[in-house]
Amino acid sequence: MTLLSAPPHVITVGARLLDDALRAQAAATTPVDWRPPLPGTAEALAEVLADPRRQAANERAVGRLVSARPYLVGVRRAAEVLPARTFLHAGPPITWERASGPMRGALIGAMLLEGHAADEHEAASRLAGGEIALAPCHAHAAVGPMAGVVSPSMWLLEVRDEEHGGTAYCSLNEGLGKVLRYGAYGPEVLDRLRWMDEVLGPVLAATLARTGPIDLRSMMAQALQMGDELHNRNRAATSLLLRELAPAVVESAPGQAAEVLRFINGNDHFFLNAGMAAGKVSTDAARDVPGSSLVVAMARNGTDFGVQVSGLGDRWFTGPAGVPDGLYLGAYGPDDANPDIGDSTITETSGLGGFAMAAAPAIVRFVGGEVPDAMAATRSMYEITLAEHPAYQIPALGFRGTPIGIDVTLVARTGLLPVVNTGIAGRIAGTGQVGAGLVRPPVEAFTNALLALANSDK
Amino acid sequence: MTLLSAPPHVITVGARLLDDALRAQAAATTPVDWRPPLPGTAEALAEVLADPRRQAANERAVGRLVSARPYLVGVRRAAEVLPARTFLHAGPPITWERASGPMRGALIGAMLLEGHAADEHEAASRLAGGEIALAPCHAHAAVGPMAGVVSPSMWLLEVRDEEHGGTAYCSLNEGLGKVLRYGAYGPEVLDRLRWMDEVLGPVLAATLARTGPIDLRSMMAQALQMGDELHNRNRAATSLLLRELAPAVVESAPGQAAEVLRFINGNDHFFLNAGMAAGKVSTDAARDVPGSSLVVAMARNGTDFGVQVSGLGDRWFTGPAGVPDGLYLGAYGPDDANPDIGDSTITETSGLGGFAMAAAPAIVRFVGGEVPDAMAATRSMYEITLAEHPAYQIPALGFRGTPIGIDVTLVARTGLLPVVNTGIAGRIAGTGQVGAGLVRPPVEAFTNALLALANSDK
Repeated sequence: MTLLSAPPHVITVGARLLDDALRAQAAATTPVDWRPPLPGTAEALAEVLADPRRQAANERAVGRLVSARPYLVGVRRAAEVLPARTFLHAGPPITWERASGPMRGALIGAMLLEGHAADEHEAASRLAGGEIALAPCHAHAAVGPMAGVVSPSMWLLEVRDEEHGGTAYCSLNEGLGKVLRYGAYGPEVLDRLRWMDEVLGPVLAATLARTGPIDLRSMMAQALQMGDELHNRNRAATSLLLRELAPAVVESAPGQAAEVLRFINGNDHFFLNAGMAAGKVSTDAARDVPGSSLVVAMARNGTDFGVQVSGLGDRWFTGPAGVPDGLYLGAYGPDDANPDIGDSTITETSGLGGFAMAAAPAIVRFVGGEVPDAMAATRSMYEITLAEHPAYQIPALGFRGTPIGIDVTLVARTGLLPVVNTGIAGRIAGTGQVGAGLVRPPVEAFTNALLALANSDK
Repeated sequence: MTLLSAPPHVITVGARLLDDALRAQAAATTPVDWRPPLPGTAEALAEVLADPRRQAANERAVGRLVSARPYLVGVRRAAEVLPARTFLHAGPPITWERASGPMRGALIGAMLLEGHAADEHEAASRLAGGEIALAPCHAHAAVGPMAGVVSPSMWLLEVRDEEHGGTAYCSLNEGLGKVLRYGAYGPEVLDRLRWMDEVLGPVLAATLARTGPIDLRSMMAQALQMGDELHNRNRAATSLLLRELAPAVVESAPGQAAEVLRFINGNDHFFLNAGMAAGKVSTDAARDVPGSSLVVAMARNGTDFGVQVSGLGDRWFTGPAGVPDGLYLGAYGPDDANPDIGDSTITETSGLGGFAMAAAPAIVRFVGGEVPDAMAATRSMYEITLAEHPAYQIPALGFRGTPIGIDVTLVARTGLLPVVNTGIAGRIAGTGQVGAGLVRPPVEAFTNALLALANSDK
């Protein structure tokens, strides 16, 4: 038998052109789904894939990520956690000069809240003069949605990983509309923040002291079975948290319980910040495993999108933040949108948000899609992740675990970028939210991380 | 051309035998999905289908059913609604002699609660002596889960249909474990009922006076997008109701708010009874349309399963209640199960419960199935229903409305019986819940209704 004496059976790779032509001639084919790696990554990929430490390092890193057991243990004033005269912000490091409109707006609001300036102009000039140090939330065991600005008088949710012992923080969610995290800093924004500082924070601190630690992993697993993807939709998780807290809120602060419960009930994203801290404490557990190509942070400051990788310490690998593609509120449109902003991509980094879209078909309408888009989004993320979460399961996929643990080498090999759900901030300081949608991260962030892995010590 | 000179193309009907044989011989076929009507119904079906009023009558009846707008408007003592010395019970009319174990247990418990007897033996003998009249909940604008026993000192949820003006009632849910509705009547059952009578009822009445009417249709539509099917799973709806009520509970009863909120939080079925009253007020709106073959009630008393039909007034058509097929708690098994009991089939009658299984894939494990079973259950119910609910939508079916409005003629023509999710009561009085599962109603209930329609005035 020679190759040509038997009927041909052809294995076709990549684009469908050859496969289609052969099938039209009734030849048997076995198509293989394959894409070329990202441009310029072939050499680095070969080097990283050949690293003998890689497989064990990734198993260890993603094993720590999926075994984290985050509990909400308390609510603390940011002053207890922050360095002096420092504000935290979302994403990789940023200067006032390079900061986008909503980031500047939120920093101005924090200056006014803290009494460091009498008006927005004074606040901007003091910030431009470097009177306040700016540091990423991620550098201080914290995360913050959108602008992610944290100043000393704010309160932080405190989440502990009962498996590995880490602690992470996230601010309290302000609700929707004109809010600091979207860059608004008008009087109603500051009034609400003062009420949160004086009432909400202390009441929640007393409440959690009474309830004891609350198992966020269990609550998030349930919320995924109730239509949340835990980034843009948190209605179920917020409801579950509220019902768990309510009796102790009453016992801790009878006189303020009604206003606190009304505030939480009025904001379906109240849970988001707890979920973000749970994601942060889980990904932090997976950091600093030498040789691991696991992504342990994705975050945006409104200018840059950055990633951090387990085997590469605290280094950020960045590219320009993109503008989300989605639906706009009222008369707003893409021209009003700021580039992607916020630490909330910690949800996707920990297997939720865009990665869990199939759990939340109702969300696809909100970000401008259809139910099959949600299924396809989640399915595609299994191609760039190292594991399926044992507790976070998706009913519509037969209770398959969510895709978790982005591997830089898988991103480079497939060219598939993480799917991210997000809110859209107005680009002018003070505007607030203008929409919500999907955004793809810049490819450079991942290719630069891969190149660094190839050049790192072996 | 004669029939035999061209290649044959055969239309095959019903069982696959002929179709399979033809295809094996490479003949082209067009299979038609068809089943014979239920045995003994052919003549009655022909007569009912020929009734010139039928189509318009069914359109009117199901139109009223799907346009109902149930609001939770208050909580009232049953004594205000009940006739004197009467207890209500689930299902079609039943006597003490024919009552099953859990029905007898619940009636005994109500006698003890009301102080009509000193112990269970005295209670049973007074009930056997007819000292208390027994009447179906359905005959008094009410519904009750499982035994469904309502006595004067209990409190009832009051639901009003803002579209058609009707009112319906349902008792307050007691929680799980040893509870009256499953036929238990021990001291802890009675203590809980007394607390509900003295604390829960009055606090909820004051709370609803403060919140004003609560839109149940909207809340139920949301819960379907959050994994509830609103019969065996009410976790989302309970959470949504609790967060809506919580602030007003605090303001209405500061001293009792914590225990009331803790009680509601401790019972994921708390919403069920509100949803049942919503179903009752909606199906009642569809009653008494002459010529309509729409089912307006399905209910079980633990002995008989009964249906009522819009065009046939208050007549019950019954057959023996079956034993559900499902999963049992602890060491219980099918031998411990009582036949099907309760008015909670009002959920299926109004397009929820088993009919909305596809919205609640998590429930199929609880009743012993897999995700595709849930999809198939809902899909099959479109074959016996007249409409798709405009507000109650199922994400996993591309936001298709739930199948609603069972038509007796469609049941007879297809032989498909309604799918019902249910709890399983122990057959011995005093046992309580032993499991949960699926049950098919007795076919006679539907064929008898069809025969009555054929014989009714034209």
